Amino acid sequence: MTRILFAANSKAWADYEAPLRKALDDAGQDFELVTESDPSSVDYIVYAPNSRVQNFKPYSSLKAVLNLWAGVENVTGNDTLSVPLARMVDDGMTEGMVEWCIAHVMRHHLDTDIDIKRTDHDWQPRVPKLARNRCVSVLGIGALGGAVAKALAALNFQVTGWSRRPRDIPEIVCLSGSDGLIEALRNAEILILLLPLTPETENLLNAERLSLLPKGAVVINPGRGPLIDDAALIAALDAGHLGHATLDVFRIEPLPADHPFWSHPKVTVTPHIASATRVESASRVIAENIRRGERGEQFLHLVDRSRGY
Amino acid sequence: MTRILFAANSKAWADYEAPLRKALDDAGQDFELVTESDPSSVDYIVYAPNSRVQNFKPYSSLKAVLNLWAGVENVTGNDTLSVPLARMVDDGMTEGMVEWCIAHVMRHHLDTDIDIKRTDHDWQPRVPKLARNRCVSVLGIGALGGAVAKALAALNFQVTGWSRRPRDIPEIVCLSGSDGLIEALRNAEILILLLPLTPETENLLNAERLSLLPKGAVVINPGRGPLIDDAALIAALDAGHLGHATLDVFRIEPLPADHPFWSHPKVTVTPHIASATRVESASRVIAENIRRGERGEQFLHLVDRSRGY
Repeated sequence: MTRILFAANSKAWADYEAPLRKALDDAGQDFELVTESDPSSVDYIVYAPNSRVQNFKPYSSLKAVLNLWAGVENVTGNDTLSVPLARMVDDGMTEGMVEWCIAHVMRHHLDTDIDIKRTDHDWQPRVPKLARNRCVSVLGIGALGGAVAKALAALNFQVTGWSRRPRDIPEIVCLSGSDGLIEALRNAEILILLLPLTPETENLLNAERLSLLPKGAVVINPGRGPLIDDAALIAALDAGHLGHATLDVFRIEPLPADHPFWSHPKVTVTPHIASATRVESASRVIAENIRRGERGEQFLHLVDRSRGY
Repeated sequence: MTRILFAANSKAWADYEAPLRKALDDAGQDFELVTESDPSSVDYIVYAPNSRVQNFKPYSSLKAVLNLWAGVENVTGNDTLSVPLARMVDDGMTEGMVEWCIAHVMRHHLDTDIDIKRTDHDWQPRVPKLARNRCVSVLGIGALGGAVAKALAALNFQVTGWSRRPRDIPEIVCLSGSDGLIEALRNAEILILLLPLTPETENLLNAERLSLLPKGAVVINPGRGPLIDDAALIAALDAGHLGHATLDVFRIEPLPADHPFWSHPKVTVTPHIASATRVESASRVIAENIRRGERGEQFLHLVDRSRGY
């Protein structure tokens, strides 16, 4: 009997209990799924970083922590955790992220806000450039960013991807390292941030790097709020250097009602909706990892905690 | 020496003269490109339906009329025309149409207007459904509609296509005939109109057919204005049956400033920009057709005038 502790808030439990039981049954597991337990008898923790469980030391038989979120920046630094940590990579989350990014890239590519927000009755045709002549850079081309980059390339955009370590994706110009970052920024008429949050990526998009973007560039951030220096972003928008910013993630969430992003005419705020974990597909990922753990196989989506993601 | 009469307005001539000469040179043609001519010496007319030339009878040596527009409804009924008529099918135009349709489908799919038009500072997350669970129907799956349907299927949408004659496109449920039309409408959470305008398609989307759409459906019309019964559309929006209409084409263009579409809260007007002919690629299509005509080969994109497109 495998004992699984679900350590997340009560809303998550309400959402996950049934699909997780089904996925574990479907995976042929003999399991006990609980929200309270004597720590020493727990085999796996299904985990949200905002849960009560912050000290893993008492979980003396723990085999793995299976994160419900893609972001692990609030777990990787936890020194009480000594067992494998897997982050969530879920098809539904990836698809949702691709769809949100395509929606906002197309919106900025074709300037559809002109038509959506128009209040006069002025018929002014325009001929936007074609996607084949539009350069989009994606910073972070892992599971999510790589899928976004591929979908954009399939729509004919000229896509540059950048990652810390060299990668190779067909149809994408893949860059890495600090020279690569400069080139990715210089090319970016539209810039998408899908990097993990680590000490190295915090404030990555500071004033100096924003100045490398071409005039009129658009920044789209569905990644992590602290990737951007907020004050530098607002300064670049106000100076007319940047055309727009569409932001889904923030340093403080919910974004405080008095934050200048809300009412800035060149900022679109979306309330952290770019990509939600979908409970059915996420439950299948958790169940598959428990099946693997029980058979001594390698876990999926293991976090390299020295790297931070 | 092939004599080519360019019969369109002076703006079109300014746009097309250089690229058309280049495309004809590149196609190895020995040609004379003019905007005025003795009719009897003209071999080909490069034609916009709004040109002065409306009587083709004096053009006694004419080999073909090569339309600059995709729409031919203002030429097909011209009884003075007895030579082959080709319409414009241009890669740039197809790509532009696909991009405009993707932009507006994604916008309605994810309800991005909520974020774009928000004036309060209210953080209200939502989890939209995934494209794989969203049904989009495309009426008209020829050169433009077929390309749109394929691009939507590549983004995981459940796509139904409908055409007058049976067609077969991989990944698309292809329907035809009047029963097929009913099914295509009943499935359409988002409906895209890309039919040619013919006596049979005028007012195709009337009150009865609008009532077949599921509640909350969105109508997107980048095809031809008269495909829709405007009053029936407004009534269906006002009754709450339809969620929104995004319209690029109208019975009268420019759309008159006092037309109710402009200020209707559930209508987005775009000023006939879904797809512009791109002069370079369109010029290559014209030059290729003249090369074919001179070698006695079949013309590309010939119009079947009995069918109307």
